[in-house]
Amino acid sequence: MDALDLDTPALYIDLDALERNIARMQAQCRAWGVALRPHVKTHKIPEIAKLQLDAGAIGITVAKVGEAEVLPGDDVLVAYPLLKSKLPRVRALAKNRRVKVAVDSVDVARDLEGIDTLVEIDVGVGRTGVQSAEQAVQVAKACSDFQGIFYWPSWLDEAGFQAACVKIDTVIAALSAAGFEAKIVSGGSTPGAAKTPLIPQTTEIRPGTYVFYDASSLAAQLCDEADCALRVLTTVVSTAVPGQCVIDAGSKTFSSDQTVGVGTFGHFVGRHWTMRKMNEEHGYVEPSPPDPRPRVGEKVWVVPSHCCATVNLHDEVWYGRGGRVEGSWKVAARGKVR
Amino acid sequence: MDALDLDTPALYIDLDALERNIARMQAQCRAWGVALRPHVKTHKIPEIAKLQLDAGAIGITVAKVGEAEVLPGDDVLVAYPLLKSKLPRVRALAKNRRVKVAVDSVDVARDLEGIDTLVEIDVGVGRTGVQSAEQAVQVAKACSDFQGIFYWPSWLDEAGFQAACVKIDTVIAALSAAGFEAKIVSGGSTPGAAKTPLIPQTTEIRPGTYVFYDASSLAAQLCDEADCALRVLTTVVSTAVPGQCVIDAGSKTFSSDQTVGVGTFGHFVGRHWTMRKMNEEHGYVEPSPPDPRPRVGEKVWVVPSHCCATVNLHDEVWYGRGGRVEGSWKVAARGKVR
Repeated sequence: MDALDLDTPALYIDLDALERNIARMQAQCRAWGVALRPHVKTHKIPEIAKLQLDAGAIGITVAKVGEAEVLPGDDVLVAYPLLKSKLPRVRALAKNRRVKVAVDSVDVARDLEGIDTLVEIDVGVGRTGVQSAEQAVQVAKACSDFQGIFYWPSWLDEAGFQAACVKIDTVIAALSAAGFEAKIVSGGSTPGAAKTPLIPQTTEIRPGTYVFYDASSLAAQLCDEADCALRVLTTVVSTAVPGQCVIDAGSKTFSSDQTVGVGTFGHFVGRHWTMRKMNEEHGYVEPSPPDPRPRVGEKVWVVPSHCCATVNLHDEVWYGRGGRVEGSWKVAARGKVR
Repeated sequence: MDALDLDTPALYIDLDALERNIARMQAQCRAWGVALRPHVKTHKIPEIAKLQLDAGAIGITVAKVGEAEVLPGDDVLVAYPLLKSKLPRVRALAKNRRVKVAVDSVDVARDLEGIDTLVEIDVGVGRTGVQSAEQAVQVAKACSDFQGIFYWPSWLDEAGFQAACVKIDTVIAALSAAGFEAKIVSGGSTPGAAKTPLIPQTTEIRPGTYVFYDASSLAAQLCDEADCALRVLTTVVSTAVPGQCVIDAGSKTFSSDQTVGVGTFGHFVGRHWTMRKMNEEHGYVEPSPPDPRPRVGEKVWVVPSHCCATVNLHDEVWYGRGGRVEGSWKVAARGKVR
């Protein structure tokens, strides 16, 4: 079946691009001398996690315990401040798999008796993570099984990475002086991946988006259009209002996350179109002159702004090669917010 | 069970508020002399659709055929430009239920042979809908079973409603002159509901949000906090970064739709807190001085900015009265984008 014959809106994964992306990041990690522990919240699909593990990933990263419960990987990092109420499920997971959890407070660390922990260090993003080397030592002392540290560089620039490197050095030295060896130094993120060598203490990284890339990756020149493995097939449903058309996909298909730094909700393949407004089922599209006038019924491929949040809206994703459909995968970890 | 004992993040519906909201809108529609055809995309839950029908709703409104397939109501309006590929499913639905579909183009109208149609008129929102009385007549002529017209006032102000009234008069007169009687004039939307008498030709309205209301409704003074029937229970997971706390709910729990005109992602009950940034699993919260400093493990109720998009992210919603949990409902029409 031709992918263009799918009823819309529909998510489609190009397997050639997916496999290239997985192989390339794995090769880069080997070259940098770090392990790869992909964040599987991007795809939420067991079959793709398996492709990553088969390619050499040492395990998986998840944000929520519910994701780990349905995705494979013998070695699991729950890269999220763990609440006490989740402990029974973490202990159940740890019976059959090596489980590590992140922690950034003494109170939570005390709850994690018998569980491997990584202390989160805030390297300048300001989301979670201890602020100082002293706090890192305090939290490490409250951990029964300290394994190392964990940071999230997000979209930090080169100067930000250099400052992060200094901070991580200071933390590792203070921990060492207090008798704690950081065996694991876990970095992360697709936008920061290429800057991994700037923090040479790093032992593993946790990028997620690189399996698919998205319109935000494209705008940041992290990839080419051909690397965008996840695309949404949509159909023009109305051209009634002059100067625009409406596609059958809005915030229930793409999520309301805008392309980082750009303000559209997706990249239109082969069209000079932008989409700056959405309702749940309506994407308001502004076509540009070089393209022919949109027709009702016309199908269009869109690379979503944020692939992770987009996949989370769908139960099923089709896949194939060369524009053909070979099958579909269930998005098994969709909606696992607990 | 106390709702505060739910594992978080969790959606909870206060049944007292829900029932009051349903009864009040039904009573208002009676007073205005219009029928109520609620847009069930807000809740996506069969049990709530049944409460609305039992209270006197004449049928339901959906955006996508997939919603109608799992939600009750003998009389269904698919208030969305229908694509040819959906026709077999619409015809199957029409075997057991009265089905009407919206149309705003001659091409689509020709496809809808044998199906009741409402021609959509754009009353100034600029999303979908024919622009002129002449176009309305052209589309009506292409329909085999013209039943009336349909408009979406969204957040139009009073002057916008007055202009819409003039346009609808003109369209109805032109249709009548061409031999088409608009038996149904379908209006809509919760923010516009109170302005229904400004368009006296209206025979029915299609509000959705009023069953729950949300932080956008609250900011627009459409309701009081006590009317907000849908709330999200969240927990503070980190206070490591000075001046903020992080809750265990981000764009996978709330959707990235901001409160209309305000810019936060939710209304915190009993707190002076705002949330202007989210990642998928992290809500960045700025607490304000009158409240005590947030503690890790503290649970907080949040009224989401956009209830419809929020419900669409969850498989299950708990319900009860007086802060107790009486049971849970499956969000049966979640993710029905086709």
